[in-house]
Amino acid sequence: MVQFANRYEGITGSAIRKIFALLSDPEIISFAGGNPSPQTFPSEEMAEIAAKILVSNGDSILQYGGTVGVQPLIDCVIDLAKQEDVEAAQDQVIILSGSSQGIELMSKAMVNKGDKVLVESPSFLGALQTFRLYEAELVPVRMDALGMDMNDLESKLKEHRPKFLYTIPTFQNPTGKTLPQERRKQVYELCLKYGTLVLEDDPYASLRYCGEALKPIKSYDEAGIVVKLMSFSKTISPGLRVGAAIANPEIIAKFNMGKQGQDVHTSNLNQMMVAEYIRQGKYQPHVAENCVLYAKKARMMGDAIAKYFPEEVAVTKPEGGMFMWAELPETVDAEELFAAAVEKKVAYVAGTHFYAEGGHKNTLRLNFTMESDERIEAGIRRLGELLGQEVC
Amino acid sequence: MVQFANRYEGITGSAIRKIFALLSDPEIISFAGGNPSPQTFPSEEMAEIAAKILVSNGDSILQYGGTVGVQPLIDCVIDLAKQEDVEAAQDQVIILSGSSQGIELMSKAMVNKGDKVLVESPSFLGALQTFRLYEAELVPVRMDALGMDMNDLESKLKEHRPKFLYTIPTFQNPTGKTLPQERRKQVYELCLKYGTLVLEDDPYASLRYCGEALKPIKSYDEAGIVVKLMSFSKTISPGLRVGAAIANPEIIAKFNMGKQGQDVHTSNLNQMMVAEYIRQGKYQPHVAENCVLYAKKARMMGDAIAKYFPEEVAVTKPEGGMFMWAELPETVDAEELFAAAVEKKVAYVAGTHFYAEGGHKNTLRLNFTMESDERIEAGIRRLGELLGQEVC
Repeated sequence: MVQFANRYEGITGSAIRKIFALLSDPEIISFAGGNPSPQTFPSEEMAEIAAKILVSNGDSILQYGGTVGVQPLIDCVIDLAKQEDVEAAQDQVIILSGSSQGIELMSKAMVNKGDKVLVESPSFLGALQTFRLYEAELVPVRMDALGMDMNDLESKLKEHRPKFLYTIPTFQNPTGKTLPQERRKQVYELCLKYGTLVLEDDPYASLRYCGEALKPIKSYDEAGIVVKLMSFSKTISPGLRVGAAIANPEIIAKFNMGKQGQDVHTSNLNQMMVAEYIRQGKYQPHVAENCVLYAKKARMMGDAIAKYFPEEVAVTKPEGGMFMWAELPETVDAEELFAAAVEKKVAYVAGTHFYAEGGHKNTLRLNFTMESDERIEAGIRRLGELLGQEVC
Repeated sequence: MVQFANRYEGITGSAIRKIFALLSDPEIISFAGGNPSPQTFPSEEMAEIAAKILVSNGDSILQYGGTVGVQPLIDCVIDLAKQEDVEAAQDQVIILSGSSQGIELMSKAMVNKGDKVLVESPSFLGALQTFRLYEAELVPVRMDALGMDMNDLESKLKEHRPKFLYTIPTFQNPTGKTLPQERRKQVYELCLKYGTLVLEDDPYASLRYCGEALKPIKSYDEAGIVVKLMSFSKTISPGLRVGAAIANPEIIAKFNMGKQGQDVHTSNLNQMMVAEYIRQGKYQPHVAENCVLYAKKARMMGDAIAKYFPEEVAVTKPEGGMFMWAELPETVDAEELFAAAVEKKVAYVAGTHFYAEGGHKNTLRLNFTMESDERIEAGIRRLGELLGQEVC
C-alpha cells in the first residue's frame, strides 16, 4: 500500500550486508568483511576514559551539544590534519558520526537528481548506494595498477562536468591500491580546471605497513574544492561511530544544516572518548601497534597466496590497509564461485558488487584483518584449491 | 563557486540554534531552550555502566554493529511499547541516533519533491526544516485548545492527499498541548480512510506530572500506517543520541537502507548503556524523579505567570513535558520584542518560527526545565514587566 519515494527504486541494500547474514557459521573462514580486528580495540583504556569523563563532566556530556562537534575533538582533528600537511581552520571542520556520514552529507549538499558523480571503478559499495539514493548518475573512472587513470579522469571530467569526484586514494576499498603522489596533485589540478569538487575519503591512510606516507589531495587545496573525510573507525573503533570532515566553511555550513536533521550532533560521550584517548598520547602508539599486527596478517595472506593460488590469478600487494584484490582469468565468475567457496567454508566478496557499471565478474576482494594466522593460511589453501579447479 | 543542490534553497538553519548563539551570557535567564535539566542526568550510574560493559564486552561494542540496533535495546523498546498498548514484533523496530533521525528517514523513505506533508500549526522546528530539505510542501493543520482540529485535519487530508501527517500528540512542542484520547482514534481512522501515513513523534509522553496517561495513535494501528518514534533524550540524556522507530516491516526496511548511509548504525556503546540502565530497573524510577522536579518547575512558572503577566496574555497549562505557550494580544509582536527581552536578560522563542505558514507573531514558547526556581520567578517577572508595557 505504501508508496515509497522514487529514490528507493532499484535500491536493495548493501550486498555485503546480505553476505554477512550468510556467515553466521563460525566454521566459515571469512575474508568477506571490512572490520578491524577486535584484538586492536582499547577496551580497558576506553572503559577508564568513559567513566572518568562521565563523572567529571556528565552535565555537559549528557546534554545536547553543538552540531559541529566538541571543541577538544575539533582541536585533535586540526592537529592530525596538520601532520598530513592540511591546514584546517576552526570553521573548516565538522565532527561526523563516522566518515560515512560525510558521503551522505556531501550528496545532500550537492546532488540534484541526475547530477553526475565520478567514482573509481571499482569503489566502496556504501558510497555507491548513498549516491544512488540521491539519484546521482554514477560515472566510473578506470583504474590501472596504481589507481585512477589520469587520462580517463580528464576525459570523464570534460565530458560529464560532474558535481564531484569520489576517491579513496590510499589502500583503496576494495582494491588496496594507493594513488601515487604526482597523480594526487594531478587529480587536484584536473578537478580545479573543470570546476569539479573532490570528496577524498581516506580512512585507511594511517594503516601503512611499509613504504613512505603520501600527502592527501587536500594538501594541495588552495582553492577550497576538496572535502576530506577522516575516520577513527579503522584506527580506534568502528562501533563508536566517530569521524570528521574538513572542507571550506561554505560547505561545512551545508553539512551542519544537513546533519541537524540526521542526528543533531554526534554523541558527546563518543567524541570526548576519542579526544581524550588522543590527548593522553595513546593514539599514535596504538595505530603503530595495529600496523604491526596487520602487516603480519597481510604477509601471511600474501605468502599463502603465493603458495596456493594458481599463477593465473593476479593479486595486489598493498602497503597497508585491510584488503587484497584478486583478478582471476576472464573465464572465471567469482560471484558464481561464491556458493562453492561457502561450501568449502571460506568466504570473500565478489568484485562485481563494487563496480558502479557492473561486470568484472572475474574479480574478488580479500580482507586480511579479521582472521587468525592459522585460519588465513587454511582459508587461502581452500580458496586456492577451488580456483585451481576453475582455472584448469 | 560551489553550486549546491536545490534542496538547500531558502534553508537557513534552525532559528533556535541561532538564538542559542546569542545566549552565551550567563546572566540571561533563558526560557528559550528545549533541553532537559542536567540535574536529571544519571552521570555516576552511566559512568559505572559504560565502564562495566566496555570491559566485559568491548570486542563487540567497539566493533561494527548491525544497522537495526543491538538486541538488548530492541527488547527494551518492545517492552516499553507494550506498556503503551503497542505490540511491536522484532522486525518492526529500528534503533536510531535520536528520534530526529526518524523524521529524516521518514522523509527520505516517502517524500518526492513537491509531495505534501501535514504538520500541526505550530510544530517542531527541526521537523519543518527536515521536511523542507526533502522539498516537501508543508500543509498546516489548525489546532484548538486541545490540539489538532479534526475537521480541519479531514479537509486537509481530502484536499491534499498528503504522504503523511507529522504529529506530536503529547505535551506538544511548542504548545504543550495534548491531543485527547478520542481524537487520537479519529486521527488514525481519518488517515486510514484517506490513505495517509502517520509519523507520531512522542518524546515527551512519559514526562507526565498529573492527569492520566493516554494511549498513542500507534495503539490503534491494525493497518500498519503509523510510524511511532521513541526517544530517550528527554528521559535519560539527549547527548547520548539514542531513540527508536516502530513501524511496519516494509517501512523499517527502508529506514534501515537510509540509515546505512547516514551512520551505518547507532553507537553500540550508547545503545548498550541505555539498555543496561533500563535492564537494571533504573529507568522508571528515574523518569518518576524527573517528573517531580519538572512538575515543581512548571508550577513555579505557572504561579509566576499568574502573578506577573498581564491578564490579556493566555498561557497553556500543560500536564507534562517541557513547554508553556503564550498568546499575546494580536497587536504585540513577540519577535520584535525579543531584543528588548534580551536587554532585560530574559529569553524565549518567538512562536512565529514554529509555524510552517509563518505569521502568528503574537505567540511565544517558554521552556521551564532548565532554569533554577529563583531564576524562573525572576525571569517571568522581567518578562511580565515587558509585556505589561506592550499591552497597555
